[in-house]
Amino acid sequence: MTDENELRLNRRQMLGTSMAALGAGTVAPQAILGGAVLTVSATQAMAQGQSAHVGPGELDEYYVFVSGGHSGEVRVAGLPSMRELTRIPIFNRESATGWGQTNELIKVLTEHMRPETKEYLKDKGGLYLNGDAHHPHPSFTDGTYDGRYFFINDKANTRVARVRLDVMRCDRIIELPNQQTVHGLRVQKYPRTGYVFANGEDGVPLPNDGRDLDNPPAYQAIFSAIDGDTMEVAWQIKVDGNLDNVDADYQGKYAFATCYNSEEAVTLEGSMEKDQDWLTVFNLKAIEAAVAAGEGEVLNGVRVLDGTGAENKLVRYIPVANGPHGINTAPDGIHIVANGKLSPTVTVFDVRRFDDLFAGKIGGRDCVAAEPELGLGPLHTAYDGKGNAYTTLFIDSQVVKWNIEDAIRAHNGEKVDPIRQKLDVHYQPGHNHTSMGQTKEADGKWLISLNKFSKDRFLNVGPLKPECDQLIDISGEEMKIVHDNPTFAEPHDATIVHASKINPVSVWDRNDPFFADAVAQAKADGIDLMIDSEVIRDGNKVRVYMTSSAPAFGLDNFTVKQGDEVTVTITNIDDVEDLTHGFCIVNHGINFEIAPQATASVTFKADRPGVYWYYCSWFCHAMHMEMKGRMLVEKA
Amino acid sequence: MTDENELRLNRRQMLGTSMAALGAGTVAPQAILGGAVLTVSATQAMAQGQSAHVGPGELDEYYVFVSGGHSGEVRVAGLPSMRELTRIPIFNRESATGWGQTNELIKVLTEHMRPETKEYLKDKGGLYLNGDAHHPHPSFTDGTYDGRYFFINDKANTRVARVRLDVMRCDRIIELPNQQTVHGLRVQKYPRTGYVFANGEDGVPLPNDGRDLDNPPAYQAIFSAIDGDTMEVAWQIKVDGNLDNVDADYQGKYAFATCYNSEEAVTLEGSMEKDQDWLTVFNLKAIEAAVAAGEGEVLNGVRVLDGTGAENKLVRYIPVANGPHGINTAPDGIHIVANGKLSPTVTVFDVRRFDDLFAGKIGGRDCVAAEPELGLGPLHTAYDGKGNAYTTLFIDSQVVKWNIEDAIRAHNGEKVDPIRQKLDVHYQPGHNHTSMGQTKEADGKWLISLNKFSKDRFLNVGPLKPECDQLIDISGEEMKIVHDNPTFAEPHDATIVHASKINPVSVWDRNDPFFADAVAQAKADGIDLMIDSEVIRDGNKVRVYMTSSAPAFGLDNFTVKQGDEVTVTITNIDDVEDLTHGFCIVNHGINFEIAPQATASVTFKADRPGVYWYYCSWFCHAMHMEMKGRMLVEKA
Repeated sequence: MTDENELRLNRRQMLGTSMAALGAGTVAPQAILGGAVLTVSATQAMAQGQSAHVGPGELDEYYVFVSGGHSGEVRVAGLPSMRELTRIPIFNRESATGWGQTNELIKVLTEHMRPETKEYLKDKGGLYLNGDAHHPHPSFTDGTYDGRYFFINDKANTRVARVRLDVMRCDRIIELPNQQTVHGLRVQKYPRTGYVFANGEDGVPLPNDGRDLDNPPAYQAIFSAIDGDTMEVAWQIKVDGNLDNVDADYQGKYAFATCYNSEEAVTLEGSMEKDQDWLTVFNLKAIEAAVAAGEGEVLNGVRVLDGTGAENKLVRYIPVANGPHGINTAPDGIHIVANGKLSPTVTVFDVRRFDDLFAGKIGGRDCVAAEPELGLGPLHTAYDGKGNAYTTLFIDSQVVKWNIEDAIRAHNGEKVDPIRQKLDVHYQPGHNHTSMGQTKEADGKWLISLNKFSKDRFLNVGPLKPECDQLIDISGEEMKIVHDNPTFAEPHDATIVHASKINPVSVWDRNDPFFADAVAQAKADGIDLMIDSEVIRDGNKVRVYMTSSAPAFGLDNFTVKQGDEVTVTITNIDDVEDLTHGFCIVNHGINFEIAPQATASVTFKADRPGVYWYYCSWFCHAMHMEMKGRMLVEKA
Repeated sequence: MTDENELRLNRRQMLGTSMAALGAGTVAPQAILGGAVLTVSATQAMAQGQSAHVGPGELDEYYVFVSGGHSGEVRVAGLPSMRELTRIPIFNRESATGWGQTNELIKVLTEHMRPETKEYLKDKGGLYLNGDAHHPHPSFTDGTYDGRYFFINDKANTRVARVRLDVMRCDRIIELPNQQTVHGLRVQKYPRTGYVFANGEDGVPLPNDGRDLDNPPAYQAIFSAIDGDTMEVAWQIKVDGNLDNVDADYQGKYAFATCYNSEEAVTLEGSMEKDQDWLTVFNLKAIEAAVAAGEGEVLNGVRVLDGTGAENKLVRYIPVANGPHGINTAPDGIHIVANGKLSPTVTVFDVRRFDDLFAGKIGGRDCVAAEPELGLGPLHTAYDGKGNAYTTLFIDSQVVKWNIEDAIRAHNGEKVDPIRQKLDVHYQPGHNHTSMGQTKEADGKWLISLNKFSKDRFLNVGPLKPECDQLIDISGEEMKIVHDNPTFAEPHDATIVHASKINPVSVWDRNDPFFADAVAQAKADGIDLMIDSEVIRDGNKVRVYMTSSAPAFGLDNFTVKQGDEVTVTITNIDDVEDLTHGFCIVNHGINFEIAPQATASVTFKADRPGVYWYYCSWFCHAMHMEMKGRMLVEKA
């Protein structure tokens, strides 16, 4: 590794300070670092500025895509109201929609599952019922959101999902081979998405089949690039160290990830051993050339390149202080910020210098444009598009506003303090986000701080407290907290998208691929799904076709035999916006949703003899309670 | 049945009007009924009154327990802010908490499952993964909330659950025998809860084992009373017709349920055949005497009484117009209101007359104190404790405020209009609730209207729209809408409880019964859960004990053999409020939560050879990312 001696921060000094304050759950004191700093309390900040209030019938200005963390879902909220508009089930099992239950949705969850995972889950229900959703990032065209998709990773089970923004539903989940976990995920901003970058956080043996079980030097961390259009892994690359967060440039040339375990240690102490870790820089054009040249090897169906070692032509490692966490590209298209976590600093890189780095003309630390000291526990940085950056300080429980150009001037020896303001947040912030701040259209209006602890900020709801997402007005000189939003576990990350970028439909297209299999089966059975309600027996398989139109299903009863494999296919022939039906069979664990003009189906074994009522579970009509029928199961 | 001729509403006239407007999804016109009515639009109503805004760091005044409908959970919100404070998983599978995964939580879900359901679910994962949570109602002492529990029903799988309010966690789920579905659920208000009343909505053969499969006259609907302290079914009773909603009096003498299918029909048309249905009144003292006398029969372990037929000593049937829905007891302790649904009227009963009804001194309709005509589709009524009632009009998309005493005067022939105001809501309201309005301490400050359709009220999130829960200020003469709250499927019902009534803990008691089994097993293994981290092998069963204390687990690795049955038991020895840990094993579908001072465990088969990282999934510390270890699975 290069540039070790250039690192100006002494990790042992720094860690001495920060370790004393590391105990989470302690309400942080005011910042103990920095010069003359304005500290504004939440109460003071209430007096003026933009409001979080959105009146009855008024619409929010922005969508916020908020990851649900280990709840496995993504939430769509409105901003500034912070109201949850809907939940998109992805890596979880969701009872109301039938996510994980209908044939259509099971297909999304299993179609691209790895064979060894299918084998593992065979006697465990066939599905992962959990996930750790981290980073929801929409697709880009030319540096801003294009409204096609968002992508999100599952750290728990090494998966990446895509959500269609027209219907706000996950249409593809893939499981990454060769790596273990996906932590950081970001997408290519230019010319378009393009690549979805996915960090394999921890090293494992390759293949991970029992070999080298307790031989950590043989473990390997992997960086993946997925084709967002096909959702196939385009390439993977082995790296030194591990991989935390990732981001991409506005030129389409580089991606970059933080490494907090350059030691490749397998213990907490081991991973903090050295004074420094690094930023890992991926040269996309060089990698594409290597892939085209057939370099590396194909493992589990994916081409895996070798990015390890100093002076690698595909990957470079730039030293930063021990334990960096977030990495965030500024909307100026030039600067990227690695956040120190264990260091009170952030490191600002000038992306224009990476060409020379790979050309061997300069060293890695020559790419550093600034390294301001901001406070304890810098985790993530957001931008306002006006030259300012907003960094969360986990340990200090603050957001610090600082000016990028001033930080560069200070780095170049001028006597200037880049820090504009420190604002207490409540408490222990992780990710933060500004309105459109991850695009070239950053508009500098709003900042949200995703705080990991809420403690006393809300009515007590028992041992498991909500998180606290705070909304901060950044439209003026001074940051002002305007709203505290409690959230269930765990908004890990979020993206704020102007409403004009997203254009969902309200009624399904009958040609939608989501239910194409059911349409094809019906056609084979001679059924017109929009008209017919009929029972077709095929050996011990029974296919029950029903329309639903408020307030009645097409059939008010159907009969099967105990032991039959029954497939019920419901088509919502109502085409009125918001007129969703549900189909629930009592005492059978079956329930799912059929939105206007959609078809959905479920397959189950009718093992219980007797009368079982089915009913519409989505309130659809004044006579919704009466929308039901009977499944009659004849005793075998 | 008595009093048929007393019914003054002609169902065919009425239904002619309402059927034309029944199509949900149509934004309702202004009310076409009633006299001089004040119609206030949402925009006008914004000008003054109480505010929904709760500033950063300020606390809400009320808890709202909101059922999650077919999402299977209950949400705890704050009021007036309407912010979701937490989710309580109950009838669903929840990924972040491990609900449905840890041994402790699987026990709650399965311990009191019926044997025939265990058999049915044996090859289906052993758990219902869905539920249709309807009516969350807290326990009472002396007519108001006592902060011990709330209870909620699962319509989908015929279950009733109890939630402990000290830890906000479900501690008991029972499955009701003999009946199918639970729709209405309310609790005994006096002297205490006491009974939890659960309506079996639909009739089925008894037993439902394949006999009388398509013989509807043999179907039987059942009303259940559960002992809220033991969560055992105290008694059941057969009724004529079916059972929709239920409520109880303030005297501890009666419960009463609406019936919308007195025809006992199995089709939509059949259930609307007759001009009237009825209110079913249960005489609790007479029923208790019959149970004590050993009347009826014991079916599936429960004493089942016979409440069918006119002049029954246990149950009476009072005619009301066809298709009543909600039934709501007023805080005056005297009046109960059955809501007409298909009739534009509500029927007000005087509970003081029920003694004479059962004594045979008066007829059922003699118990009617008023029957005001309010508008189209009255579903539910709430109260302000000042003599006013608030009824949702589903078809009209309105809430109507009316005065009970004026309705009685009008019923007695005086020329007085009981209607005070009609307010447009958005759109198609179902349940509504006032602050403390279901207790004798109704305070008349807030009303929420749970509207089933939202359509254009929020940013478009695709075909599946949110519901719209509207907050209405009722503290003045005029109702004013102050906030629109979008919600995920489906807030079916809610209860608004003053914050002073609820006192949760923040740290678990080590003697809590929730994890007593794990504590006992550890003791048998010679393990002190608060200190020891150790692996114990017992044949092919491996028990892994670990403490968790930010930022480290007690073990940074453990080794098992492929095929072992592994139980990992984690004890969170941190005792800091809000310092929850999680435990996730990568690529194993395992993740759960361990709140401060709690123990939680999971059992799984280690079928995958290789290195699998485990990590803390609840952000706990600046070095949370480093809180992890390795499970090493040796190839068999």
